[in-house]
Order: sequence, then structure tokens, then C-alpha cells
Amino acid sequence: MRFSRKNVAGLAPYIPGYQPGPHEDSIKLNTNENPYPPSPVVVGALKDAVDGRLRLYPSPDSSVLRQKLAEAYRVKKEQVFCGNGCDEVISMLFRTFIDREDLVLLPYPTYTYYQTAAEINGSPYRYIETGDRFQIDLERFLDHPAKAAVIVNPNSPTGMLLPRPELVEFIRAFPGLVVVDETYIDFSGPGQSVTPLIEECDNLLVLRTFSKAFSLCGIRVGYAFGHPDLITELDKTRDSYNVSFLSQVAAASALNDLEYTRANIREITANREWLREQLLDLGFQVSPSGANFLFASHPVRPAGELYQRLAERRIYVRHFDQRRIDNHLRISVGARGEVENLVASLKDIMG
Amino acid sequence: MRFSRKNVAGLAPYIPGYQPGPHEDSIKLNTNENPYPPSPVVVGALKDAVDGRLRLYPSPDSSVLRQKLAEAYRVKKEQVFCGNGCDEVISMLFRTFIDREDLVLLPYPTYTYYQTAAEINGSPYRYIETGDRFQIDLERFLDHPAKAAVIVNPNSPTGMLLPRPELVEFIRAFPGLVVVDETYIDFSGPGQSVTPLIEECDNLLVLRTFSKAFSLCGIRVGYAFGHPDLITELDKTRDSYNVSFLSQVAAASALNDLEYTRANIREITANREWLREQLLDLGFQVSPSGANFLFASHPVRPAGELYQRLAERRIYVRHFDQRRIDNHLRISVGARGEVENLVASLKDIMG
Repeated sequence: MRFSRKNVAGLAPYIPGYQPGPHEDSIKLNTNENPYPPSPVVVGALKDAVDGRLRLYPSPDSSVLRQKLAEAYRVKKEQVFCGNGCDEVISMLFRTFIDREDLVLLPYPTYTYYQTAAEINGSPYRYIETGDRFQIDLERFLDHPAKAAVIVNPNSPTGMLLPRPELVEFIRAFPGLVVVDETYIDFSGPGQSVTPLIEECDNLLVLRTFSKAFSLCGIRVGYAFGHPDLITELDKTRDSYNVSFLSQVAAASALNDLEYTRANIREITANREWLREQLLDLGFQVSPSGANFLFASHPVRPAGELYQRLAERRIYVRHFDQRRIDNHLRISVGARGEVENLVASLKDIMG
Repeated sequence: MRFSRKNVAGLAPYIPGYQPGPHEDSIKLNTNENPYPPSPVVVGALKDAVDGRLRLYPSPDSSVLRQKLAEAYRVKKEQVFCGNGCDEVISMLFRTFIDREDLVLLPYPTYTYYQTAAEINGSPYRYIETGDRFQIDLERFLDHPAKAAVIVNPNSPTGMLLPRPELVEFIRAFPGLVVVDETYIDFSGPGQSVTPLIEECDNLLVLRTFSKAFSLCGIRVGYAFGHPDLITELDKTRDSYNVSFLSQVAAASALNDLEYTRANIREITANREWLREQLLDLGFQVSPSGANFLFASHPVRPAGELYQRLAERRIYVRHFDQRRIDNHLRISVGARGEVENLVASLKDIMG
């Protein structure tokens, strides 16, 4: 296309997981959505907010939501940023901090949108290979001078959680910006987040989301914690009104019912461990997971084939046709009935 | 801030109009919001959509909404793009088409977010001065080789509409990308949009929004019409799920009640012409407006002073402290009672 920037012309877009149509009867375990609906408190707050106020612009900086996030996570309001989903925050990280010549380090494999965002930004990235069981080796990140390093923790698609002391030590030692993407941290057990470290380290941005633990993929609200100077810079590159009125209402009200979310997390964690046992019994290798999904491969049955056979039964899991991980499946942890159905189908398929 | 890109470090952020608090009793005529609530069809559709589906990701490409926009505007679905407000589409235009060395032409004055977006992008822009009554001179845009030209039509903050044949001729003649921002075109009377020209001109992108005519600033949905190749490139640089589920529902349902929107447009247009007469009677100079706002200055009373005196009465209009326009007020057209109140207050203030 004659008008495109050169790096955009050659770009392959990020491909999200298959979205079944609204009337398709299926089991959707392919995009790490929460199997349980959002809190009734959220549903009620949204229904109350649907009125003439929609004619008005929302708070430009999601002011009430930032205040509530600050209270919920015991940080200061000026240490909080809100975006149109975590993806917008990721895209903004590049626009705000990464110049055309600045190198960004990423583990391989990880959430592929980081590569896409770097390519859109027209700036270089370097993958640091994970170990033979996909463990992230933070020491290796220190070998490369770079403007920034991204650590998704727990990582996607592997679900693996880094030991917190190692990660803390790395954040303190790395001279550039460290982005710790904690999209899945709510499923890792208590005390794993590095959020408290923003008080000490002005090179740390922690990314979080309402999509997973809060069952709110649909509202598109991600947020970030970091030094006030980092937040100020993000606010400069933000679209004037980047989070819709209803999304601000939904996210803020979700923080009023943390117990509901915690109960769902306990349920999902239990389903995850049950599913992991079942997959191990079926001969799969399954990484230990701190997320709401499992990463599994089978020594005999190719992942691509299993993916296809499950899709024929309208059970959708995720298969990435990428180096090192193309013989793995990433399986979102559904409700108990869904994962039971998955296991029964796998038993059937695998004879 | 040591991590910022150089062009971001020096950036002054875009400053939106003052947002009164939720409990402040005020007349808000400063951000060109529609004074009437959105259609009851939209409110009903939203209330019906607030349920467990919020746990799921929305359609990544706003598929149903694009289809409905295509039908409503008699274009093809592949000629339609949807974004998180027009501001996201503007920001994406730069990321997608404008490289670091590419010049973008803007009229002066115009919507200042274009300058902000260029500065964030780190690419040059050049203002082409409007005439002594702020009329855009398209001939002058042809004097400068550039990657793109932006024409806001009707322009903001002036409200002035270009003669359509002149604009069509310009789009055909300009060798680069032409962005026609039609945020306010619904208030210009029928037949003014250049949307039909996308069939003929592959260098044209037309920007539109649900914020103004549809009374939906709160949902953040902007859209663009253009050649399918331009739309394909925008889809490459889009965040994976850039429009929330409820925003897609609201926008799509608004297209089911066009008669409601048309009636509001008639009302606002009548209020605008009434207000214009009143301002002229008070001695203001007022540009002819094709938008839902008026641009006015007084030969004796400084705009900054009038702005302050109105704000003391909690009547908020917009005053831009910028070259050439700092003695003007931009006044959004409110409901009849609001503009009557404004006129009474002005009479009072001006003695």
C-alpha cells in the first residue's frame, strides 16, 4: 500500500484466538477468559449507569477509577495509569519510552503482542531464549544493553511464574525500564506481585488488567503501576478520553466486590490443578502454572492434530504455529463442567 | 524523565475542556457534547447487553458494527474501520501512514489533537494559515509537497464548512493521503459528506464519530471510511480488541434509530441559528457554522474576560489561549433553555 510506513507494510497483524459466533454451542478455552460471569455488583452498577450521561465525555484520566485502584492496591493515585485494555498500555509503552533505535528485550516465548507493538513502533527487539523447560533466565537479560526489558509473569503461553526474589533482584539490577506484565498474577497465589517495588524502583512499570480475574474482558480496562514520573509521561501520549464511561464504571465497581473475585480465583485454581492431574494421567507434559491456563504437550500425539480433533467437537484450545511451541497446546481453565468435558473428549480422541 | 523519548519529554499534553464534577450544577457548552440524551433504543440495547457476556472478549474488528455502518452509509464493509473514539483513529493514522520524516499539512487553526498526535509520532507538521475570516484555502495546501493533509470539515474551532466542490477537487488533486475529519458534518445539512468519493479516490480517509450527532461521547466510538487497502493497514496497527463490547452494542443500536438522531440534529441546528442571531444582536462577530457550536468574538469585550465572567456563573464555554483565536469563544449549542440562559447572562455581563 503506497501510503504505508515501511515497517507497517511488511507487518503481519496479531491474530487473536478464534471467536465462535454468538449462537455457536462451544467450549471456549482458547483466549484465557474467565469462565464465570462478572460480579452482580458490576452488572448492577452498569445497568444503573446506562442513561443520559452517555452523551457526556468520560473522565479523561479515569480519575475515580485511579483513586479506587490506588486504595485497593495501597499505592498513590499518581502511581496509577488506566488504559483501553492492557494492549493499549503496551502500545503506549512503546510510543512513550522506546525510540526508533531503542532495543527491547523479550523472553521467547512470550505474549506475541509485544513483538507486534515493537514492529509497529519500528524499533528493534531481541528475544532471550528461555531454558529447555521454558524457564526465563533473568541473568541472560543482563548480558544485553537495552532500553527496556519485558517480563510477563506468569508468562504466556507457558503459565510459569518466576521466583519473586529473583525477579526483584533483576528489577534492581537492570539499568533500563523493566515492564512486568502481571495479567495473570491473580492466579498465582498471594504475595507474588512486584507492585510494592514501585516505591523503591523508578524503572519499574507493572501491568495489570480487569480482563482475567475480574471476568471483564469485554470492557477493555488495563492499568499500570509505576513511579509518578513514568505515569506522567504515559498521560502525555494518551488519547484524550481513552477509557469509556461504562468501562470506568464497571472497573471501579468491580473493586467493590473483591470477595466475589477471590472466590472465582479459588475455583479456577482448583479446576486448574484438577485438569493438570488429568492431563498428566493422559501422558501429557504440563508446565506448573501460576495462571488461568495450562501449557501442555504430548510425547506421542502432535498438538496440531489434537487441536484439530478438539475443534471438530467445538472445543477450542489455543495452538501457536511458532518455533519451539508448535507441539504445545495452551488450554484456558474453564468451569468444572468444561474441563471435565475436555478431558473426556481427549480420552476419546486419544483412544 | 530519563526513560522518555525525546519528543515525548518536551511534549505539552492535549488539554480537554473543563469537566465539571458530577454534582456541580452547571451549563456545559465547552466540549461540543450533544445536549440531548442518546436514543431510548441505545439505552435499551445497553441494558439488555449488561450480563455474563462481559467476561468474553468483544469482536476484535467490531464486525457487526462495521457491517451496520456499511449498510447505513452505503459503502462496503471492507471500507469501514472502527476505533476507540476518533482520537484513537487519529493517533493510528500517524502510526500507520506517517514515518518520522513525513510532513503532514494542517490548517491553522484546527483541532489541536492533530498537532499533539504528530508530536507524539515525532514527525513534522506544517500549519497552513487560514484567511482573515478563518476560511481554509485549499490551493495553498497544493503548494507544499507532503505525505498527508488533514482537513477538518466543518473545521474546529471555527465551525466553518468548505464548499463541497472545492474539497472534492482538492482530494482529486492532492498527491498524498487526504484525511477529511467529518466529526461535525451531521450538523451541516444533507449531501455535504465526501464519503461517496472513497469509491473513486484511494487517497481519502473520512473520519466520523458517534460522539456528537448520536449523543454518545461516553462510549468512545469513532469510525473511518476509505479504500479497503487503507483499512487493511489500519487493522494491522490496531490493538487486538480496541472497541469494548458495550461500545460496539451502543453504536450498532444507535444506527437502528436514525430518526431520533435526525430530530435532535434539527433541534440543535435551530438552537444554533437562534443563538447566532442573539450573539449578532449583542454585537459579536460570529462565523457561519455547519457544526454544533459557534465561534464568536466581540469587538470591545475581550473573550478571556467573558469566559471568566461566564465561568463564575457556572456557564462553561471554551476559550483557547492560542495565536489568532485568543479573542474568540467557542460555544457549544445546548438545549434551548441552556442557550437562552447563556444569552441572558451575556446581556447581564455586558450591561
